[in-house]
Amino acid sequence: MVYLTRLEHFNAAHKLYNPGWSKEKNEEVFGKCANENWHGHNYELYVTIKGDPDPDTGFLFDVKKLGEIIRDQVIEKLDHKNLNLDVDFLKDKMCSTENLAIGIWQQLQPHIPAGVQLHGIKLYETPQIYVEYFGT
Amino acid sequence: MVYLTRLEHFNAAHKLYNPGWSKEKNEEVFGKCANENWHGHNYELYVTIKGDPDPDTGFLFDVKKLGEIIRDQVIEKLDHKNLNLDVDFLKDKMCSTENLAIGIWQQLQPHIPAGVQLHGIKLYETPQIYVEYFGT
Amino acid sequence: MVYLTRLEHFNAAHKLYNPGWSKEKNEEVFGKCANENWHGHNYELYVTIKGDPDPDTGFLFDVKKLGEIIRDQVIEKLDHKNLNLDVDFLKDKMCSTENLAIGIWQQLQPHIPAGVQLHGIKLYETPQIYVEYFGT
Amino acid sequence: MVYLTRLEHFNAAHKLYNPGWSKEKNEEVFGKCANENWHGHNYELYVTIKGDPDPDTGFLFDVKKLGEIIRDQVIEKLDHKNLNLDVDFLKDKMCSTENLAIGIWQQLQPHIPAGVQLHGIKLYETPQIYVEYFGT
Amino acid sequence: MVYLTRLEHFNAAHKLYNPGWSKEKNEEVFGKCANENWHGHNYELYVTIKGDPDPDTGFLFDVKKLGEIIRDQVIEKLDHKNLNLDVDFLKDKMCSTENLAIGIWQQLQPHIPAGVQLHGIKLYETPQIYVEYFGT
Amino acid sequence: MVYLTRLEHFNAAHKLYNPGWSKEKNEEVFGKCANENWHGHNYELYVTIKGDPDPDTGFLFDVKKLGEIIRDQVIEKLDHKNLNLDVDFLKDKMCSTENLAIGIWQQLQPHIPAGVQLHGIKLYETPQIYVEYFGT
Repeated sequence: MVYLTRLEHFNAAHKLYNPGWSKEKNEEVFGKCANENWHGHNYELYVTIKGDPDPDTGFLFDVKKLGEIIRDQVIEKLDHKNLNLDVDFLKDKMCSTENLAIGIWQQLQPHIPAGVQLHGIKLYETPQIYVEYFGT
Repeated sequence: MVYLTRLEHFNAAHKLYNPGWSKEKNEEVFGKCANENWHGHNYELYVTIKGDPDPDTGFLFDVKKLGEIIRDQVIEKLDHKNLNLDVDFLKDKMCSTENLAIGIWQQLQPHIPAGVQLHGIKLYETPQIYVEYFGT
Repeated sequence: MVYLTRLEHFNAAHKLYNPGWSKEKNEEVFGKCANENWHGHNYELYVTIKGDPDPDTGFLFDVKKLGEIIRDQVIEKLDHKNLNLDVDFLKDKMCSTENLAIGIWQQLQPHIPAGVQLHGIKLYETPQIYVEYFGT
Repeated sequence: MVYLTRLEHFNAAHKLYNPGWSKEKNEEVFGKCANENWHGHNYELYVTIKGDPDPDTGFLFDVKKLGEIIRDQVIEKLDHKNLNLDVDFLKDKMCSTENLAIGIWQQLQPHIPAGVQLHGIKLYETPQIYVEYFGT
Repeated sequence: MVYLTRLEHFNAAHKLYNPGWSKEKNEEVFGKCANENWHGHNYELYVTIKGDPDPDTGFLFDVKKLGEIIRDQVIEKLDHKNLNLDVDFLKDKMCSTENLAIGIWQQLQPHIPAGVQLHGIKLYETPQIYVEYFGT
Repeated sequence: MVYLTRLEHFNAAHKLYNPGWSKEKNEEVFGKCANENWHGHNYELYVTIKGDPDPDTGFLFDVKKLGEIIRDQVIEKLDHKNLNLDVDFLKDKMCSTENLAIGIWQQLQPHIPAGVQLHGIKLYETPQIYVEYFGT
């Protein structure tokens, strides 16, 4: 079994703000991440699939097609968006990197072709912070 | 003469939107950067000063103090902010990386100590795009 | 379960030198790393924790607090230090990156809050060399 | 148990081309990667070994010797080569990154010294694409 | 005046080989870069333009359009190509990074729009080696 | 005229300590950089030369030979050394990155071959701090 990883990028605005809490509590818990006027990030998204290479191509899966799936199912919905306002699959969820990584997994999972498995999501919010999710 | 450069980071939301234009013209010119709900970036800011090292310290200038000046005069005003809404020195200006780099120069220039000169600003909006400004 | 990783930095001097061996044997085994006048590195430390996100915050754990724990328990003891001379938890151990990673795990483990687990340490000695430790 | 990783580089030419297929089918499946005049990459190879550190050295294994093994057994055979024409261990295989990672594992495995185990190969074809292989 | 830089990538095969010299002299001068079966690189191309920002957009020039010009005039001709065999503007020239950078400048220069100037080309052959060219 | 740059690395220990000052003044001015037991860095050194390419080779200068000159004249004297104790050309100078960059220029200058000129030194002390020197 081999593991194949593809990197894609997106830029987005968000804030960390629990609408069930007061403004004061949000600022106490989230600090400047709660700025009501938003802030944003250049996210870097690594998607890893696994399986056995096809002897005719040497490919686990065509990495260009993997890139297309990631761009169609994820980047298109997130790039140059407001994560709190513009993204269906984050509705009613806190816009943390943790929830974003889990949501990206759920978007990709149904579109991974037969014969390969989605292995993991690695999502950098900044070069100093990243979250990984492996589906369970 | 030697040149000393310090890197600092900030995250911010913005949009590219000319309020004197229609929504349609903004979308035509700026594409998805005009998203009215904002998007954002991890900015990387390199500040370069120049001059002659002091024989007693070997320093052109204490790089920790340079970091403090950058954080006090620039990062504090930009980090986790909305560049269009929250930043005095960008009021009535388009929030492009070009204007942001020029504005950062103007914020720093009065705080550069005697004996050294501000040489240049290099500002990455993404790892693929950066702007430089040298004061004229 | 999600995994959250935080990067912190420190700079330190060290040498690889077994005091139970002759100078000749140390030089034979460790080469220029045995230089009795020390050498040093910019270390990059990735700390990974794991667990389930809190629905109210979306956080596995507040990454700023994770950064504070790492800085208080590890960086404070290592940054701008001599690993052989200045660091209690390396006393009587060889100052290899392997032992340093294990020692960092042991420093952090008692300070990881309930509800999350320390998953792994990844420590770069140079951009070409790193060590990982997962606690067993 | 600790894990120690070493990075080495090589540059090589290749093409993705199945000699059992027509030129048209190769171009359909592999696109511009099938260019009969070749293209090439700067490959980055991370090799990870695992085991217990030796108390006398603090080393799992001397990382300089690990670098020598990688250079002697792998880099020497791949650097500034044509992967399709010049490399014995890729004869009669498709020159994909997947097969290259598996082949590198097989070259290294017999040369890993007693007391440590080869854990994994991570091979970047470009900064956006990498393959991992763990031996099974 | 501000400077705006855009990064684009391409992968290509080449060899360093002077057809006016014997094989022996080529190997003596160029070493393994003369391998007759080619080798290759992931090139990273930084293109810098300069001028004054437009007050209506804040842009020196639309960086997405700059990316399109670079891709249309340069990347299209070089990506997944053999620099010695497939590239018109390198015909009868040695395929060094120096000549490649000069050739890229000459390809781009006629397509830089009025009001901005091409300032410089920075071309990485590997992460350890780059060439810059400023037009004269 | 083209500019060719080569990156080399070294690791070293140092401290910032003026022997003409009291321990207290050193600690006041240099903070933890004055630790008498030393600290250290992974330095990254970029050396840039300039001139006209040779039509027979396409080279400004053979970049492998440039690497050899840098390693023989600079890296050999600095790698795995104590900059304060082990380096002749830093004797009686403060071990700042500024003075180190100037010293490296002076070591390289006499060994740059006829027909090319040394253009600049860029020396990273950490990924956040670098110094440049252009000879005057």
